[in-house]
Amino acid sequence: MAVATPDPIPPTIEWMDGVVRMIDQRALPGRLQFLDAATVDELCEAIRTLAVRGAPALGVAGAMGVALASVTGEDPDAAAARLVATRPTAVNLAWGVNRARAAADPVAEAVGMAAEDVARNRRLGGHGATLLPPGARVLTHCNAGGLACAGFGTALGVIRSADVAHVWVGETRPLLQGARLTAWELDRLGIPVTVIPDVRAGSLLAEGAVDCVVVGADRIAANGDVANKVGTYPLAVLARHHGVAFYVAAPTSTIDLSCASAADIPIERRSGDEVAELAGTRVTPAGVEAENLAFDVTPAALVTAIVTEVGVLTAPYSAALAALTAFE
Amino acid sequence: MAVATPDPIPPTIEWMDGVVRMIDQRALPGRLQFLDAATVDELCEAIRTLAVRGAPALGVAGAMGVALASVTGEDPDAAAARLVATRPTAVNLAWGVNRARAAADPVAEAVGMAAEDVARNRRLGGHGATLLPPGARVLTHCNAGGLACAGFGTALGVIRSADVAHVWVGETRPLLQGARLTAWELDRLGIPVTVIPDVRAGSLLAEGAVDCVVVGADRIAANGDVANKVGTYPLAVLARHHGVAFYVAAPTSTIDLSCASAADIPIERRSGDEVAELAGTRVTPAGVEAENLAFDVTPAALVTAIVTEVGVLTAPYSAALAALTAFE
Repeated sequence: MAVATPDPIPPTIEWMDGVVRMIDQRALPGRLQFLDAATVDELCEAIRTLAVRGAPALGVAGAMGVALASVTGEDPDAAAARLVATRPTAVNLAWGVNRARAAADPVAEAVGMAAEDVARNRRLGGHGATLLPPGARVLTHCNAGGLACAGFGTALGVIRSADVAHVWVGETRPLLQGARLTAWELDRLGIPVTVIPDVRAGSLLAEGAVDCVVVGADRIAANGDVANKVGTYPLAVLARHHGVAFYVAAPTSTIDLSCASAADIPIERRSGDEVAELAGTRVTPAGVEAENLAFDVTPAALVTAIVTEVGVLTAPYSAALAALTAFE
Repeated sequence: MAVATPDPIPPTIEWMDGVVRMIDQRALPGRLQFLDAATVDELCEAIRTLAVRGAPALGVAGAMGVALASVTGEDPDAAAARLVATRPTAVNLAWGVNRARAAADPVAEAVGMAAEDVARNRRLGGHGATLLPPGARVLTHCNAGGLACAGFGTALGVIRSADVAHVWVGETRPLLQGARLTAWELDRLGIPVTVIPDVRAGSLLAEGAVDCVVVGADRIAANGDVANKVGTYPLAVLARHHGVAFYVAAPTSTIDLSCASAADIPIERRSGDEVAELAGTRVTPAGVEAENLAFDVTPAALVTAIVTEVGVLTAPYSAALAALTAFE
């Protein structure tokens, strides 16, 4: 008889007695603590400050925000607009908001979407695992783990579903989601992981130490272009230069057919202080500008495959991505 | 009548009444303060902790260390060995030590080498300036400025000698020499500079925002392979991918004909704590390894030109580099 093993990563976001309970990712890896949002504004603040982040998790957060509004009696139009405005790049946020708004019972819809997200990611992980060689040495970036979803993860979902010997993760400047979150998850999962400065990826690939690159996505355009955490695009170029496979793992909710290509995807510009300051101390000289675009764009031509819960897509992506909407 | 303008960047390293006075680069950009080393051990500690760093500056530091030993009466063999062992990758350190040891008056030789370094870098800058288009938008990495030399700089020497409209500099994780030092120098020089997370270089190049990449070098092998700060190699691959010129600016003292290729260049591995900790706070989970190789290697095939004080070299590099030794 199969016994369900509890996931060593607690749920990222849950509906609990009329509040949205989240792992406060700002406190990781130092402390595993939870943050409750009882109003739409509290949830918006949690999203803006990255207490909860990651495209699939933002989808669930958007739905739970609409659920909150339905419970607190807040105006649903205003709540939806405020939620969608918090982060511009991840399309899942608007997707989650819209699904909950269209439902008769937004709370039930949001709760169902969280469970559905985990189930999708498990299927996605199974599909992706077939791409990796046994004992794979995988390079990833940022955090596309359980913490970026309701649970289980997308890129890390592939990694935990496959036979992976070692994971290299770029620390992911400026906010260090790789060093703080991905390393924490993989350590909990018992998967060997080494944190590297993001720029070490080049020489690692040159040394032949990487079998494939697996990353998540914040939005995928109709032509297969991928917006993801800044630093993804250089990995795609480096992978191509070294003949290493570059996989994007993302649920179909990340696909936005209304964007013909990446040129249509808005790229979030965050405060330069996130780059210029280190633990509250300014490291860049006063008066010198620091730039902080949160995402970059990888053209479809550099993507070996897109792994979804429905299956593995390869180029040309346009037809495959359009066909996928039939499953939605 | 030409009036000499004082350089807005003070000398990085000077001989002052029997001690070696250095800008303490660990305190920049917050404070411009100086550090005096009166013994070889004090100088070795300054080198190891990066109070003084940069390949050409290390050449002068090596010579001044031998000069210190001659003044304090320390055993010259032991002093030389301790100095050379502080940093394994920059060949200039051993070069400086050997030159001072071979001189009848190590103090005069070391003082002369500092002046010579500045003069070389000015010539190097003039040669490099001819490569850049008017109003150039330049991407650089780490610090190959006056602070990496006795003065004036190599990559920044090219930039300050040319008509440069804007410089993008990667912050250069983990020790942020780009954000701390290069931004400080360019700001003092009145050259517009923007600090970026290192991984933003990819999308900048994709946007067409960079006319050329100019970096320094810690050691150049006989075949033109270049060892430089980790993160240089990904820039070279990205520059090639985008058809952008990739220039290495380094004095001939950086060339090591005893290394046939980069495979012979030792790459310094520093403490993982420099990656895992941010301003003294651990950001990587306890028990998770963080890796910290200080340099990477760019194959000669990706280098558009090597700019030296003698002139601009282009591929094939082997013959040109061998011929250059005739000038030494």
